[in-house]
Amino acid sequence: MLFQVQMDVRLPHDMPAERADALKKTERERAQDLQRAGTWRHLWRVAGRYANVSVFDVASVDELHQILSTLPLFPYMQIAVTALCRHPSSIHDDDR
Amino acid sequence: MLFQVQMDVRLPHDMPAERADALKKTERERAQDLQRAGTWRHLWRVAGRYANVSVFDVASVDELHQILSTLPLFPYMQIAVTALCRHPSSIHDDDR
Amino acid sequence: MLFQVQMDVRLPHDMPAERADALKKTERERAQDLQRAGTWRHLWRVAGRYANVSVFDVASVDELHQILSTLPLFPYMQIAVTALCRHPSSIHDDDR
Amino acid sequence: MLFQVQMDVRLPHDMPAERADALKKTERERAQDLQRAGTWRHLWRVAGRYANVSVFDVASVDELHQILSTLPLFPYMQIAVTALCRHPSSIHDDDR
Amino acid sequence: MLFQVQMDVRLPHDMPAERADALKKTERERAQDLQRAGTWRHLWRVAGRYANVSVFDVASVDELHQILSTLPLFPYMQIAVTALCRHPSSIHDDDR
Amino acid sequence: MLFQVQMDVRLPHDMPAERADALKKTERERAQDLQRAGTWRHLWRVAGRYANVSVFDVASVDELHQILSTLPLFPYMQIAVTALCRHPSSIHDDDR
Amino acid sequence: MLFQVQMDVRLPHDMPAERADALKKTERERAQDLQRAGTWRHLWRVAGRYANVSVFDVASVDELHQILSTLPLFPYMQIAVTALCRHPSSIHDDDR
Amino acid sequence: MLFQVQMDVRLPHDMPAERADALKKTERERAQDLQRAGTWRHLWRVAGRYANVSVFDVASVDELHQILSTLPLFPYMQIAVTALCRHPSSIHDDDR
Amino acid sequence: MLFQVQMDVRLPHDMPAERADALKKTERERAQDLQRAGTWRHLWRVAGRYANVSVFDVASVDELHQILSTLPLFPYMQIAVTALCRHPSSIHDDDR
Amino acid sequence: MLFQVQMDVRLPHDMPAERADALKKTERERAQDLQRAGTWRHLWRVAGRYANVSVFDVASVDELHQILSTLPLFPYMQIAVTALCRHPSSIHDDDR
Repeated sequence: MLFQVQMDVRLPHDMPAERADALKKTERERAQDLQRAGTWRHLWRVAGRYANVSVFDVASVDELHQILSTLPLFPYMQIAVTALCRHPSSIHDDDR
Repeated sequence: MLFQVQMDVRLPHDMPAERADALKKTERERAQDLQRAGTWRHLWRVAGRYANVSVFDVASVDELHQILSTLPLFPYMQIAVTALCRHPSSIHDDDR
Repeated sequence: MLFQVQMDVRLPHDMPAERADALKKTERERAQDLQRAGTWRHLWRVAGRYANVSVFDVASVDELHQILSTLPLFPYMQIAVTALCRHPSSIHDDDR
Repeated sequence: MLFQVQMDVRLPHDMPAERADALKKTERERAQDLQRAGTWRHLWRVAGRYANVSVFDVASVDELHQILSTLPLFPYMQIAVTALCRHPSSIHDDDR
Repeated sequence: MLFQVQMDVRLPHDMPAERADALKKTERERAQDLQRAGTWRHLWRVAGRYANVSVFDVASVDELHQILSTLPLFPYMQIAVTALCRHPSSIHDDDR
Repeated sequence: MLFQVQMDVRLPHDMPAERADALKKTERERAQDLQRAGTWRHLWRVAGRYANVSVFDVASVDELHQILSTLPLFPYMQIAVTALCRHPSSIHDDDR
Repeated sequence: MLFQVQMDVRLPHDMPAERADALKKTERERAQDLQRAGTWRHLWRVAGRYANVSVFDVASVDELHQILSTLPLFPYMQIAVTALCRHPSSIHDDDR
Repeated sequence: MLFQVQMDVRLPHDMPAERADALKKTERERAQDLQRAGTWRHLWRVAGRYANVSVFDVASVDELHQILSTLPLFPYMQIAVTALCRHPSSIHDDDR
Repeated sequence: MLFQVQMDVRLPHDMPAERADALKKTERERAQDLQRAGTWRHLWRVAGRYANVSVFDVASVDELHQILSTLPLFPYMQIAVTALCRHPSSIHDDDR
Repeated sequence: MLFQVQMDVRLPHDMPAERADALKKTERERAQDLQRAGTWRHLWRVAGRYANVSVFDVASVDELHQILSTLPLFPYMQIAVTALCRHPSSIHDDDR
């Protein structure tokens, strides 16, 4: 089941650089684990913003929320979730 | 080069059904040709709306506009374009 | 799987009354069938607007879209979909 | 009398973790008391956000405000209230 | 129980004048009946717009919706409803 | 001359409780003086928000601004002002 | 008493040219009468839009509404009204 | 003097094709005349929309409005105007 | 050349009173100098907000920006600029 | 390939002046290097705001993002990116 998720990140200006780097490092590791697991299906950078557009492939909405809400950067994110489904004109086998 | 494109379609209520069906048919054929060509990379339906979220893989912005503006349903669409680029945490080889 | 769906209905002013009544009648029958099936879990009227707030219990996003997009009043609706999941503080057994 | 209430929570980034946990604990206890009392009828988590969609069953608007404004997390919430009433197509006996 | 209701009216430009006048006449009569009944408590014109700000005193949300949705001009209105309750600093006995 | 004024209050999270209470106390006294003077005609709490909807009866716009801008909580308020006038359908003698 | 009024005009595309010209002519005459009376104090065109920014000097809000709502183009206008008062730094004697 | 102008065009769906083509033709000729005159300095198409972003070089705001308001497509345009001035970091001699 | 400028001021809550007063004093002096020079043509207070609506008469956009960006309160302002030009129905000689 | 980029800058009020000046200095140098390289094609100041409208000429979206995200002021910017392409009515040879 696919969900498009847009994440805009705003780190506090007064956050120490080390803290920010550590957060970004664990965020990166988590994101790559989830990509390897096939859950975080697509991850693109939005040009010109500290933001990404992603597509998640999850078994349930609960799983989606569990993933998003435990991302290290979650407290600093503005998130929009759009439920996707198969388009009648899609020829992609796996674009469920 | 990847662009996310969201298309919301509003057909006039008084459009004859045959005309609407003809438009949708040609739209569908065009979309499938472009998908086969690899240009229309992803095409998902937004749940609950006559809208889609798509990702286009084009050589230039001009090509993107040429494709979108000649879609049969273009005159009836509200379109939002977001320029995407490779995310530093992406592990997908081909998510340029 | 639960989705909150808000539907605002705008019928064209020049739609003949009989046509509008017929649409509403079939809409009503469909809504009641879906409620009996347990799919359309909650249906409330928004005070002061020709709109409703509903909660759907579906097996997939595709099923949700199939239901919404085939509602007789769908072409005249502005729809917002919010994916819901179980709240950690919820005591309701069945509020998956 | 039913009201839909959407609550988006934004805790200050510099709030000590213990303080935040304590607030969440009392919030949770209050929410569960109110659910047991039948007042907080539905409580769902919005996927991807520190937010919930709830339905309250209260005897008056004053009661609704009294409940919401004394929630431990109230000072950190963005709240939207929608007055609901029975939908003419609803088959649920108790969806007053 | 008090609700603030803001009503913005947009009549179709091509509506025959007689039809518009008839609608306004019955709207006016209904509004005055409801004011005499104490239900439509306050009715003010918003300066510069074909809109009003009103306060309704009703026994239930259902009653509020029944009143608003059967106003002759309802199909041509954009309506916003705000649930009001007694302000702790209010000295007005009857501003429940 | 009547003005509808909506006031949304946001006190800084790090404001000491005593300071906040003192501000609220003087705000309350000022509001009650103005109500006794007939200037602050209506004062209702918006359900679910630290906000009020009020109606002021003033001799001039300058007087309105003088009152609002010297309220103790003014620096912490988001204020919207709507100029009201007598509605042609109003039966209330004094709803100038 | 001064009010800033912004008026955006949208004439229906299918309005016959003569009708539109007649409306504009009477609108122009009314605007010039009101300017000569000192009521319509300032009238500027917003560059790039069929819109104006005006300042009205009226004795009451009722008078303001009576003027605006009887403008020939009123049914085709989107109007925003802002109540103005003397600025403490103003040196203009007559900018009440 | 430079102004950025964004123009979004919405032609009525029921406008005869010949009429639309004629409008576009004269619009095109006017735009090219103005470009040759150096007034319409930049003209770019917004990818995915029947819209353009332009920069006009004019002697006065009146001249800007006169140009825009007499464009053949003006009645079908949503226009936003942004006044530009020289940026302190600009190295372009002629980017007044 | 006339520009309408709306300035909404938000001073940080933790700014020392003396600093705020000093800023306001110099702002006031600057505003009065500019008014005497005829540049700051109109200055009105928006009722109910720490905001003003002004009209500037400048020789160029650069001059306008130079004035606004060097106002003492500029860093604490949300500013909207609207380019104005002579209205065809204006009878004011000097409302260029 | 051209992109319009609008950048609104908000520096924290409590940032030491030296730090702000240093940031602006490096930002200025970077901007001028990029202009000399032909990448930062146009750079205009938006009148009345600490903001600019720019046009970038880049070989890819990645290049655009790399430039923007490494600007010294990037963490303090609100950025909007619009993909541009050649307008069919453009006579400018190089307005690809």
